[in-house]
Amino acid sequence: MEKARGDTALTGIRMRIDLNSDVGESFGVYTYGDDERVLQSVSSANIACGFHAGDPQVMRRTVRLAKAAGVAIGAHPGFPDLVGFGRRELKASLEDIEAAVMYQIGALAGIAAAEGISLRHVKPHGALYNLAARDPSVALAIARAVAALDRSLILFGPAGSALLAAGRDAGLAVAAEAFADRAYEDDGSLVPRGEPEAVIHDPAVVVNRVLGMVRDGRVRSRRGTEIELRPATICTHGDTPGAQRLAHDIRLRLEAEGVRIEPPRGAAGSGQ
Amino acid sequence: MEKARGDTALTGIRMRIDLNSDVGESFGVYTYGDDERVLQSVSSANIACGFHAGDPQVMRRTVRLAKAAGVAIGAHPGFPDLVGFGRRELKASLEDIEAAVMYQIGALAGIAAAEGISLRHVKPHGALYNLAARDPSVALAIARAVAALDRSLILFGPAGSALLAAGRDAGLAVAAEAFADRAYEDDGSLVPRGEPEAVIHDPAVVVNRVLGMVRDGRVRSRRGTEIELRPATICTHGDTPGAQRLAHDIRLRLEAEGVRIEPPRGAAGSGQ
Amino acid sequence: MEKARGDTALTGIRMRIDLNSDVGESFGVYTYGDDERVLQSVSSANIACGFHAGDPQVMRRTVRLAKAAGVAIGAHPGFPDLVGFGRRELKASLEDIEAAVMYQIGALAGIAAAEGISLRHVKPHGALYNLAARDPSVALAIARAVAALDRSLILFGPAGSALLAAGRDAGLAVAAEAFADRAYEDDGSLVPRGEPEAVIHDPAVVVNRVLGMVRDGRVRSRRGTEIELRPATICTHGDTPGAQRLAHDIRLRLEAEGVRIEPPRGAAGSGQ
Amino acid sequence: MEKARGDTALTGIRMRIDLNSDVGESFGVYTYGDDERVLQSVSSANIACGFHAGDPQVMRRTVRLAKAAGVAIGAHPGFPDLVGFGRRELKASLEDIEAAVMYQIGALAGIAAAEGISLRHVKPHGALYNLAARDPSVALAIARAVAALDRSLILFGPAGSALLAAGRDAGLAVAAEAFADRAYEDDGSLVPRGEPEAVIHDPAVVVNRVLGMVRDGRVRSRRGTEIELRPATICTHGDTPGAQRLAHDIRLRLEAEGVRIEPPRGAAGSGQ
Repeated sequence: MEKARGDTALTGIRMRIDLNSDVGESFGVYTYGDDERVLQSVSSANIACGFHAGDPQVMRRTVRLAKAAGVAIGAHPGFPDLVGFGRRELKASLEDIEAAVMYQIGALAGIAAAEGISLRHVKPHGALYNLAARDPSVALAIARAVAALDRSLILFGPAGSALLAAGRDAGLAVAAEAFADRAYEDDGSLVPRGEPEAVIHDPAVVVNRVLGMVRDGRVRSRRGTEIELRPATICTHGDTPGAQRLAHDIRLRLEAEGVRIEPPRGAAGSGQ
Repeated sequence: MEKARGDTALTGIRMRIDLNSDVGESFGVYTYGDDERVLQSVSSANIACGFHAGDPQVMRRTVRLAKAAGVAIGAHPGFPDLVGFGRRELKASLEDIEAAVMYQIGALAGIAAAEGISLRHVKPHGALYNLAARDPSVALAIARAVAALDRSLILFGPAGSALLAAGRDAGLAVAAEAFADRAYEDDGSLVPRGEPEAVIHDPAVVVNRVLGMVRDGRVRSRRGTEIELRPATICTHGDTPGAQRLAHDIRLRLEAEGVRIEPPRGAAGSGQ
Repeated sequence: MEKARGDTALTGIRMRIDLNSDVGESFGVYTYGDDERVLQSVSSANIACGFHAGDPQVMRRTVRLAKAAGVAIGAHPGFPDLVGFGRRELKASLEDIEAAVMYQIGALAGIAAAEGISLRHVKPHGALYNLAARDPSVALAIARAVAALDRSLILFGPAGSALLAAGRDAGLAVAAEAFADRAYEDDGSLVPRGEPEAVIHDPAVVVNRVLGMVRDGRVRSRRGTEIELRPATICTHGDTPGAQRLAHDIRLRLEAEGVRIEPPRGAAGSGQ
Repeated sequence: MEKARGDTALTGIRMRIDLNSDVGESFGVYTYGDDERVLQSVSSANIACGFHAGDPQVMRRTVRLAKAAGVAIGAHPGFPDLVGFGRRELKASLEDIEAAVMYQIGALAGIAAAEGISLRHVKPHGALYNLAARDPSVALAIARAVAALDRSLILFGPAGSALLAAGRDAGLAVAAEAFADRAYEDDGSLVPRGEPEAVIHDPAVVVNRVLGMVRDGRVRSRRGTEIELRPATICTHGDTPGAQRLAHDIRLRLEAEGVRIEPPRGAAGSGQ
């Protein structure tokens, strides 16, 4: 099966990918990122839900922008930590996390319903994402919250993570995520942000790496080893001008190579 | 069953009524009211949504308690003012209010969905309720938010208020609310809280007044005039031990008089 | 005396003025304004205290920047409304306002003490400023909070406002404030922001008006009448690139005319 | 009287002790603990500063109550986590912690100054206290914040902890704290809260243990070993009715044994 996938790529079956970006991270008078531009390039928008960023009006505007751009929307729940932008781990109980995830997804789903669209996916944010990637009990709390609320939501998480496993266990469709501009270790894990080679800055290199992931299911690790990486969705960050341009470049190149940019499918098998 | 109801109705108009109470107003380590007891007496629970009170875990526990008690649930959105408990008016824009109401209803609806039940109604809280009662533009912002999100939700508001009018204009079923222990003026408005006769403290008097509203559609104003008041729902506050007892007394007396205690119906005409 | 002041200006006694700006309004990952640049032009910095903007780290950084730039610092307390940036009026009790002002001044004073400098003034922010300008009881609550905390602090408020009067009554030195780029009515009040002529956009005109206020104690109203306006401090907003440039232009022009830019003096009579 | 007490001090080292309690943990409409009663028994009050509990009005009321009761006051800074009551560890940076501690101490100091008294001590709250007890870098960040703000403040921390060591290194007077109703291990550390014997429930046992610490500098570990423990201050929690009674019992017994209950002295050597 895994093998076949590479082959079928020739016929075009595997030649589609989702591009996602974090949006809706403005707050009150504060503007963060350029959502309008980034929504021109991605197929899935992860919308902040008011705990680490975003507020009801920002959420509503973002939902409208995404709808107008034809981009699928998902909830981007985080820790309740506005001043830390959800990037600081909080030793919350599993009950806390489960309820907080329900709350945030519900809040965005309510606004989306009022705007006439539905959520397609859920991607935890920041420290909650990183914690869920490695901690099976947190991952399960999140997956259970998502599944209890709406079984048709697709759970995004790093390829090979506890989060994806928990999503599958909870009966959810999942989408394995890769990062366009991040370096990987031989074992498929991300090079930690603190390290100098963690982020790849050359746009041309980034675009080529993404193409390799999508077309061949392979990418070179920082040690130079070719490793397997078959994402269903690729994260292109949206919070810097350079990143917005990058998302655009990635999209253009992928489309030029015949890859369709579209949200992951909810049916089983859309993730891996 | 339906038929029987019609028969008992022959003796009096409206031999059923909804009793509602504000619940889920605890927060973190702080307990407020005795929700478990009050849910034994009411048929509709107005659940705080995290802006003026409540947090995701409290909301979830409250939804579970209400479900277990067979009580219909509704969202109780308020101003974002935890320290002021939503009792302080905030000069928010209509866009702010509209989005904040969507957010809060959605958050509770998400938690409710995860617990396997649906919201039945929406009742604004505190200063937002009072503002919506008298300000048609705020009332409309709220009604539009509710209608956009879910047209089957019933909007609670004071009898004769701008809020009820806006609800009807927005195509919602509405439920006219009366207050069990509050005095009324000749024109049907509430005696303002600041005034000495605003609250009626004698439980026997309160119970009789409620019975009068339900059976006869009439109540005596503070000047002694009999005025018309035909509520679809009666608010029994839940935040003091005395009030919990009062809700219980009201229920017993109404049931003894053959009145059914049940949530308002969503169909047109359930409110007034 | 008042008359004499114009005359003495010739000798240079009146040829000094304070320029102030709101700074420290960033929050977490969100940047607001360009404090480093604006601090090059003003002599007093109004630092947000975490209720409407700012956070402890932002406050500390701002205190350091102001200290390094030799700019006097003051507290800029606001309503507890981060999402509304303190621009929305909140019907808080006088006790609430008094305690909230103490809290915010204290918080900034603590950080300033740790950085080795002291607060010089207090200027309420946004909706609290506007409310205090017209409501004597709110003005008094603020003035009493400031005086109770530190009698040497100078209270900033609009010329002729309830806030300045309350400051004087509470025994504080006050500084009458004018706005560089705002139009005035014949009675010395500001043209409301909603109206088209409220803000003066031509930098040359603004600079000339400021010079007129400082040198002659006069400015032309929007109807063309020359009115008296003798500010002790002039507000130059810091939140837009244009405004930063404007502060710079004002400073250059004033200095070219021999006006000294310096914080108001705390001794009685420094304000008016 | 004074003389007699001095004499008894000859026979034993340390015939005085500080009793402290956490107070001011109410918030808005929410009441927590019975501060008025607990302040009758203790000599030092740790007042919440609005991050994990407390609000400006609660802080002011608590300062007034403590002042009226003749109790020394101190700041009780915590993580910014109202819903978690500061009991959840947050992976904040050292810069964050340092600035947040300054902010909170300053806020309380401002309110205290307005009420005419000064802070005597600082005791971190909850998860921040526990983290500072074991993590030298966090301990140092806190100690530096305290020392930079006001070198005369006494830092409270567990006997033998990183927090006390950091306080001394920063040039602060420190007060070693013991817990009246908690069990200790042989090495002087607390039995973790999760374990069944962590809390001692029998008031008579608790009172005797406290007396042993104060008079003899010894207490029995949970394994039965006599260990040395010479606290300068003893924590009696204030958030349950039982605990309030306990503080009262401890005070009565200590006084009956000739121990003076008084705040720790700021001079070097008051702590250990």
